[in-house]
Amino acid sequence: MKPVKVGLLGLGTVGTGVVRIVEGHQEDLASQVGSPIVIEKVLVQNKGKSRSVSIAADKLTEDPWDIIRDPEIDVVVEVMGGIALTKEYILEALERGKSVVTANKDLMALHGPEILAKAREHRCDVLYEASVAGGIPIIRTLVEGFSSDRITKVMGIVNGTTNYILTKMSQEGASYPDVLKEAQELGYAEADPTSDVEGLDAARKMTILATIGFRANVALEDVSVQGISSVSKEDILYAKRLGYEVKLLGIAERQDDLISISVQPTMVKQTHPIASVNGVFNAVYVYGEAVGETMFYGAGAGELPTATSIVSDLVAVVKNLKLGVNGKQGSLAYKEKKLKTDEQISSKYFLLLQVADRAGVLARITQVFADYEVSLESVLQQPTPGNPDAEIIVITHDANKAAIRKVLDSFESLDVVHKVKSVYRVEG
Amino acid sequence: MKPVKVGLLGLGTVGTGVVRIVEGHQEDLASQVGSPIVIEKVLVQNKGKSRSVSIAADKLTEDPWDIIRDPEIDVVVEVMGGIALTKEYILEALERGKSVVTANKDLMALHGPEILAKAREHRCDVLYEASVAGGIPIIRTLVEGFSSDRITKVMGIVNGTTNYILTKMSQEGASYPDVLKEAQELGYAEADPTSDVEGLDAARKMTILATIGFRANVALEDVSVQGISSVSKEDILYAKRLGYEVKLLGIAERQDDLISISVQPTMVKQTHPIASVNGVFNAVYVYGEAVGETMFYGAGAGELPTATSIVSDLVAVVKNLKLGVNGKQGSLAYKEKKLKTDEQISSKYFLLLQVADRAGVLARITQVFADYEVSLESVLQQPTPGNPDAEIIVITHDANKAAIRKVLDSFESLDVVHKVKSVYRVEG
Repeated sequence: MKPVKVGLLGLGTVGTGVVRIVEGHQEDLASQVGSPIVIEKVLVQNKGKSRSVSIAADKLTEDPWDIIRDPEIDVVVEVMGGIALTKEYILEALERGKSVVTANKDLMALHGPEILAKAREHRCDVLYEASVAGGIPIIRTLVEGFSSDRITKVMGIVNGTTNYILTKMSQEGASYPDVLKEAQELGYAEADPTSDVEGLDAARKMTILATIGFRANVALEDVSVQGISSVSKEDILYAKRLGYEVKLLGIAERQDDLISISVQPTMVKQTHPIASVNGVFNAVYVYGEAVGETMFYGAGAGELPTATSIVSDLVAVVKNLKLGVNGKQGSLAYKEKKLKTDEQISSKYFLLLQVADRAGVLARITQVFADYEVSLESVLQQPTPGNPDAEIIVITHDANKAAIRKVLDSFESLDVVHKVKSVYRVEG
Repeated sequence: MKPVKVGLLGLGTVGTGVVRIVEGHQEDLASQVGSPIVIEKVLVQNKGKSRSVSIAADKLTEDPWDIIRDPEIDVVVEVMGGIALTKEYILEALERGKSVVTANKDLMALHGPEILAKAREHRCDVLYEASVAGGIPIIRTLVEGFSSDRITKVMGIVNGTTNYILTKMSQEGASYPDVLKEAQELGYAEADPTSDVEGLDAARKMTILATIGFRANVALEDVSVQGISSVSKEDILYAKRLGYEVKLLGIAERQDDLISISVQPTMVKQTHPIASVNGVFNAVYVYGEAVGETMFYGAGAGELPTATSIVSDLVAVVKNLKLGVNGKQGSLAYKEKKLKTDEQISSKYFLLLQVADRAGVLARITQVFADYEVSLESVLQQPTPGNPDAEIIVITHDANKAAIRKVLDSFESLDVVHKVKSVYRVEG
């Protein structure tokens, strides 16, 4: 049997994992696809560097075109990251009839439709399971497992760094800057953590999940994003006291044809399964009209979990190659998106207010909520020993985002409200 | 576009769900497969009966061969249950080139290999996602999502009835017979609950999961089975006090090439995610060498969740039909199974012993464990007011099943042990 030849773009952590799995599971893989899978060429930055996997020197190249333009290469696996140049490589690989497996969420969130269109045009597959939630096969589940259902909500912890930070803050009562520093020392957070902690990484993943879940042409700029840098020790303490955990949740919702997508720190009821997803683990909650609620949980990153997803995609591509049916994924996003306005986006909210400690204040505050038709689930006045101000915690019933904004605007000009300390969406 | 014609064998709860989804999601389904999917004929027991879905009278038939032998029917969906006759229908459907989607765990656990071989011979698909864990796409996940990984353990709550009973016993301190009676009244348990409560239903599902997970020719009789009818209120109380929940777990394990499969009431650490899967929900934990630990959670039964899995399988079959690639699933079970002996099956155990309350008893008991090289994690003497006997709880470190059996045999002839009240496997 003629071996299937793979060109690997990148030999960092994940690329190394791909080599390990393809070589370590060679027999199992060959049994499944009917011929050996061989890593034929590997793009590296520096051929001379020493590595933790052994690869014959003549397989290494520093020139990507060596791989893209090699007619012997059947499939390109892209784990180098980056956007503009990487896109160029992938598009040319597709033009040359090579199917592509990628872990590149940035690229797929920004240029997914263009790349998938090019793939169809040239009868190639582009699979990208590893781009979201590492080892959890969530894309495959949405595309195939729930192909018959109508997904109404996808809610996930899709960024391990921020979940690690929030878990530590919750479990140890530590502050955000302290835990971030520790996470950076442990290698769980980047030297420049912006993309993770400001929610951009999660937003890219939610763009991909919403596109697939709702089969609509969602774009990154449709995601309303807020990161975790403003989450305080105090917020988490209050949350826990009320039976909640603070999690950075990506939430994509659909009502009839109207979609909303957001990423924000959210108070999640402790009884909800997603509240107990801790550390660097990821989890994606999927609600379908027929299937009801389901959850998928696992490692969101790491050399081998991510590489598993890549090699499973590779197996799928090779099976299609053997059957001669690459490029038949169909147009996943065949629906024109219609985004909800802020008036249509509804959820419960938690507000922590610092107010004047005198008679009649509570009445004036609750009147503001009433003015904008926001009804309240609970109002709690916290004792604040040694402080002339009082603290009030409000949890609303479902309210629309526009109304909450108007409430917050009104508080600006209300003398008895000295400060809006925190505002959180509430789930579960 | 020529519609794809489906013959439906059975119009009970799940069959009705299939009709609802195929008709309700017609547009979405057609977009995915490129042509309408039509339920052409439906096998019912009594054409005259009134139904909760409207189906044209001329589509109903009381004769299965009307469907099996109709050359117009492309795909057969089997949701009638049963074994011998149903197998005959499915084999003939395959011989006539019709792919089959089935929810029949009994049939697949007993005759899966024969049916899958017939399917390959006639280039047909047989898909059976709905046979295990209702709406959770766990079979697809094992086959495709983790195709590149080596699964070492599959552990699941795969029977909703027993999980409902154990959850109620745990949450309300109720007794097994009382909760069983209530479950029967609510329709969560059958009038004859044997297959559920004695673990047979779970064993069938574990046979299917182990076959796929380990790609080995596992048979139902390879599963060691114990049900929940002997679980007492007291056991659950002790478990909770020690930080465990009692769950009926199916556990399939592989070490190198050696396999063991069992179903038994198990004490699960409350911190393990599977411990908080309650009520009729199902969850399957999968450990892969590369991916680490993952969990899949959702509704294990019910009209629509199960029907979702069936229709998603139907979509997969129809896609293959359009591509002309049915029957290419390959041999899933290409490995000859090697079963572990009891000496090779290792886990922690919980034992509750009723013993004579006098000096030196504990030493004699712990000596028995030592004789068979079972080391102990904890030993706890319970106060038993008003009882001349004492109660001792022992939790062992990992010990092999044969050694535990020898310990229990020795207790039979040890005068100070009056009764072995409970023995549980421990996980997490």
